[in-house]
Amino acid sequence: MAHLDLTGDVVALTRTLCDIPSVSGDEKQLADAVESALREFAHLEVLRDGDAVVARTGLGRATRVVLAGHLDTVPIANNLPVVEDGDLLRGRGTVDMKAGVAVMLQLAALLTTPRYDITYVFYDHEEVAAKLNGLGRLVRNHPAWLTGDFAILGEPSDGTVEGGCQGTMRVKITVPGVAAHAARSWRGSNAIHSAGGVLDVLRAYEPRRPIVEGLQYHEGLNAVKIEGGIAGNVIPDLCTVFVNYRFAPDRDVATAEAHLREVFTGFALEVTDAAPGARPGLDQPAAKEFVELVGRTPQAKLGWTDVARFATLGVPAVNYGPGDPLLAHTDGEFVPVPEIRTALGNLTRWLI
Amino acid sequence: MAHLDLTGDVVALTRTLCDIPSVSGDEKQLADAVESALREFAHLEVLRDGDAVVARTGLGRATRVVLAGHLDTVPIANNLPVVEDGDLLRGRGTVDMKAGVAVMLQLAALLTTPRYDITYVFYDHEEVAAKLNGLGRLVRNHPAWLTGDFAILGEPSDGTVEGGCQGTMRVKITVPGVAAHAARSWRGSNAIHSAGGVLDVLRAYEPRRPIVEGLQYHEGLNAVKIEGGIAGNVIPDLCTVFVNYRFAPDRDVATAEAHLREVFTGFALEVTDAAPGARPGLDQPAAKEFVELVGRTPQAKLGWTDVARFATLGVPAVNYGPGDPLLAHTDGEFVPVPEIRTALGNLTRWLI
Repeated sequence: MAHLDLTGDVVALTRTLCDIPSVSGDEKQLADAVESALREFAHLEVLRDGDAVVARTGLGRATRVVLAGHLDTVPIANNLPVVEDGDLLRGRGTVDMKAGVAVMLQLAALLTTPRYDITYVFYDHEEVAAKLNGLGRLVRNHPAWLTGDFAILGEPSDGTVEGGCQGTMRVKITVPGVAAHAARSWRGSNAIHSAGGVLDVLRAYEPRRPIVEGLQYHEGLNAVKIEGGIAGNVIPDLCTVFVNYRFAPDRDVATAEAHLREVFTGFALEVTDAAPGARPGLDQPAAKEFVELVGRTPQAKLGWTDVARFATLGVPAVNYGPGDPLLAHTDGEFVPVPEIRTALGNLTRWLI
Repeated sequence: MAHLDLTGDVVALTRTLCDIPSVSGDEKQLADAVESALREFAHLEVLRDGDAVVARTGLGRATRVVLAGHLDTVPIANNLPVVEDGDLLRGRGTVDMKAGVAVMLQLAALLTTPRYDITYVFYDHEEVAAKLNGLGRLVRNHPAWLTGDFAILGEPSDGTVEGGCQGTMRVKITVPGVAAHAARSWRGSNAIHSAGGVLDVLRAYEPRRPIVEGLQYHEGLNAVKIEGGIAGNVIPDLCTVFVNYRFAPDRDVATAEAHLREVFTGFALEVTDAAPGARPGLDQPAAKEFVELVGRTPQAKLGWTDVARFATLGVPAVNYGPGDPLLAHTDGEFVPVPEIRTALGNLTRWLI
């Protein structure tokens, strides 16, 4: 089994983690190495579910924070092993997100008596279908392993704290018509034409940009699919518009649905899919401290991320990790070495 | 081979024709019987192409009229042999259109010296895909067989003359956008929302109802298909609207296209399919005579029919035949016996 040196140089640890391939579904070798390395430390209780590894202190502190990161990567594109290029580490997984995992593993090893209790979570299947997500599986199988007052996911966040995330809801709007032969179209009622009313609503819609706990969000209401018509000579009796609503975390799923029903008054609407957003939790004392320590203005997270999985357990969560999130999934992904050291430094100062 | 008695009772002939099954693709037995029966008459030249049979007089008249009908039917639905029910003949093919064929066959046999030269056309594959249509095949293979000054198709027309037919054009309108993640929709441009502009045009469009050679047509401009969107979390970069334009026969295909390009100014439009309409030809002296003799107000034909195939050869054409066209293709189709006799009488008085 590969050996991980958790107490050595964090940059060397990042390289080692990257050079153990762990494309989604193939995380076992890395998960075994992580579990084995963590079990060397007596101050940690180590737990395992599939290829997810959880380690936690049990110091009886009043506050518990959770540090989490995923072990898997998107497929390798001839970009391993890692290459050191001046101040950069280049290669698959460097930015998304083994640098963040390396920082957390080193904290786990070195912080024997942190001022908050800490739960470290390293999980599988983040880069694939949501139903496979290892963090989601832990939420279902072992919610008690994830309890805490505040969570940080080590995803790349460009050195700032990215708070919470927006929720998402998909609705199917069904617009009826009356079929007729196209040669006598006035005997029918064209469902596609009537769906123009749905597009009118979408074109006129002004998305909110609310500020929640100091972070500015940006909503969106968009048709993501439209379909109607069965033959070139038939007036269609059905047109379906699928709409995606991205909503700020000051709205819950029920409020989002009520809003859509009001916006689309007169149309038949069915919710097909919804995931709540997550408040950033920056009103928590431990979170405030951390944001001040990072020293940069926190940003709202617009896309839905795994922080929302913590939100379902009532644990506010943010993203904070080394590297530029826009490089994630690119074949040329890299992480700047100074950012790894900065992240390690900030988290250590906060937790020590 | 089945024997057809062309000079006996036209109602008995209708029954005999119906009771020889001739579902599209299976017309050979009936075509053989028709050819054989027509060859008994020395005043007719008989020609054959596949299962289409053409017979014509050669009297050197200044005017030639064409009488045409299809031999095939839609599939039998346990509605053969024909049942006589009071004044009705019930069963597959009675109304669509073996009563009309029977009338024409009797005219072919009896009118040895009509006042116009007459070409009789009995063809296959009318009830299936247009590319198989026997009349279309004759237009391609033997256009000279179909020449004339005026044509009548014996399709059921409820005792009136149905003139010409509308043309049809299908266009594909492609609306572009800029893809983006649905969580950051403002970075993209939603093609489905932009396609709302196409639906605006369609909803505001006022179709023409022009009078052409005394007949009132009714145009239509309708979306018959719409599709856009590739995933529930992506702002679509393409939406396609398929539009069907039904246009009166005072417009040709080029004029119809120019009209659509003007109506949809600013949108990318591609013509995918077009078929010209057909003028009714009611300004022809022979046609005028016939309409007066029928004594009922002629009606515009709105759907595209085989009369347009004659139009492509420069032969104006109308529909005239016994029975209600709305019964065509129904399992309960029937034809009233008096209408068969009326059609035979009117055509005889016109041609004798």
